[in-house]
Amino acid sequence: MTTTRDTVLSGMQPSGALHIGNWLGALENWVAMQDVYESYFMVADYHSLTTGYHDTSALPGLVFQMVVDWLAAGLDPHRSIIFRQSDVPQHAELHLLLSMITPLGWLERVPSYKEKLKELAQRDIHTYGFLGYPVLMSSDILLYRARKVPVGQDQVPHVELTREIVRRFNGLYGEVLPEPEAILTEAKVLPGLDGKKMSKSYGNTLALGESANDVSQKIRVMMTDPARIRKSDPGHPDVCPVFSLHKVFTAPERVSEIDVACRSAQIGCVDCKAILAGEINARLDPIREERVRWEHQPEQVQEILHQGAIKAREAAQETLSLVKDAMHLTTLE
Amino acid sequence: MTTTRDTVLSGMQPSGALHIGNWLGALENWVAMQDVYESYFMVADYHSLTTGYHDTSALPGLVFQMVVDWLAAGLDPHRSIIFRQSDVPQHAELHLLLSMITPLGWLERVPSYKEKLKELAQRDIHTYGFLGYPVLMSSDILLYRARKVPVGQDQVPHVELTREIVRRFNGLYGEVLPEPEAILTEAKVLPGLDGKKMSKSYGNTLALGESANDVSQKIRVMMTDPARIRKSDPGHPDVCPVFSLHKVFTAPERVSEIDVACRSAQIGCVDCKAILAGEINARLDPIREERVRWEHQPEQVQEILHQGAIKAREAAQETLSLVKDAMHLTTLE
Repeated sequence: MTTTRDTVLSGMQPSGALHIGNWLGALENWVAMQDVYESYFMVADYHSLTTGYHDTSALPGLVFQMVVDWLAAGLDPHRSIIFRQSDVPQHAELHLLLSMITPLGWLERVPSYKEKLKELAQRDIHTYGFLGYPVLMSSDILLYRARKVPVGQDQVPHVELTREIVRRFNGLYGEVLPEPEAILTEAKVLPGLDGKKMSKSYGNTLALGESANDVSQKIRVMMTDPARIRKSDPGHPDVCPVFSLHKVFTAPERVSEIDVACRSAQIGCVDCKAILAGEINARLDPIREERVRWEHQPEQVQEILHQGAIKAREAAQETLSLVKDAMHLTTLE
Repeated sequence: MTTTRDTVLSGMQPSGALHIGNWLGALENWVAMQDVYESYFMVADYHSLTTGYHDTSALPGLVFQMVVDWLAAGLDPHRSIIFRQSDVPQHAELHLLLSMITPLGWLERVPSYKEKLKELAQRDIHTYGFLGYPVLMSSDILLYRARKVPVGQDQVPHVELTREIVRRFNGLYGEVLPEPEAILTEAKVLPGLDGKKMSKSYGNTLALGESANDVSQKIRVMMTDPARIRKSDPGHPDVCPVFSLHKVFTAPERVSEIDVACRSAQIGCVDCKAILAGEINARLDPIREERVRWEHQPEQVQEILHQGAIKAREAAQETLSLVKDAMHLTTLE
């Protein structure tokens, strides 16, 4: 039986081991999507070159650690296609073909373009490749004829540009490419250990594969309500980073109890943190176990990417052939 | 035995049947190169999209007619590799990789960029792909590790840019790519039927495959020295387009005789033209014959491109693997 499910494509730039913010913010969604959609999950290594071409020596390790996290968190190569962008030449081919019909002005007007140029001013990314990032992202989406693209608010203009490119392509060469639609995924922002958004650049993360001991230790030294100096002082959960994490990891009735107990000084920070560490560790235990298993099977992980690439290429070639035929560039196998 | 010959790469955009100016200006050089160099001859169909993406319906015919001319003029698939750019995905892949390290400023400063934008103002080529043309040309050259690139004066800046990209690449990732060198081919400019440069856009050409009758007829109606009204008037060979063509096609001692006879009104224009037609037809006869033969074997021509693509891909993949390894993008076969 052939599937009639919608196709989704999602990708992450290879950033190494993920933290629990990445997991709850995106990866958990991906795991759920596998049962609903024909799912493609892509290690976007070409994308990472647009801003990180200067030093790529860490790339193989970053790819490996990230894919280990994907698998440990529940991405299943039997239910979804897990692959690396650079293993599928069709991404570069469609990128080149779409580049021919994409006006420079469209790219220069993408909001993130000027922002990133400013933000990464010290990195020298005034390159041809960085300007073309949205064309590459369009190719990723269109190759798999993905109808739905789960993205955060900041990526919506890229999907919009993809739709413009589709309309231009179909206008020039006939109705070949489907217009994709952005699915706004509510970016659950996980608070970090210091109460700010959890992010590698703030150094306030818990890694998805962090050992139980390290989790407990990192939580033990977390800042809490700065006004609560003695255990007998009443606490203010609303300003306490530990409480913020309780709201994510602890059952609601228990969270209410802690809220009351903290405000009435019936529970101290040490105990409150121990409860949180216990909750987080209980959630991470199965992932951690899987993580260790995958980390010790690097050949297996490479094989999953290899098999994923074979399937991705097959699907991608189907679209590329349609595109080349429409442009009167005969395809040769 | 493996060859230690230098490699050359040359390409032409698919422009359909060639005229004898193309033949003497470039194709004859190519035919001679086959015995000296490891030669790659490329139908640059991707390049043609940079300025001609609007309507590609004629492309298959243009490719076919041009390759027929190549073969008829003496390009030999046993001694050189004849292929179509879009059949070799590695061109797009290397283009994408090099795009990451190519500063926008380098491309905006290529002299031909602004010139062409102006020249083709009505064509709407303010596209991402047109700006990236020199990156694509660099990929073409570098994929085959071509040391020599036969080009006209106008293409020298493109080879210079390729050298800059090579230096940047090698500086970032190690000594992987060789710096190519431009071989300035003296552009023999053939005069057209009206005395101006022979060019399709002037409508003053003789096609390489033109029938003997058509050649004779087109020469018969050529303008000659406008001051020579009667056969008894002395002629001025230096201002006569027919004489210009004699200098190309007729043996030097015969040209001298005609020179004298024209100036002294001993030979009339009709006879002079008949001699020229005879000379040109003698040169074109074997090509014409070959041309008819190839034109009736379209499958054979496709098969030559097919086999050429297989060989080109193999050579290109070798370089691409080196490049990807150097950039720490592991290659998967």
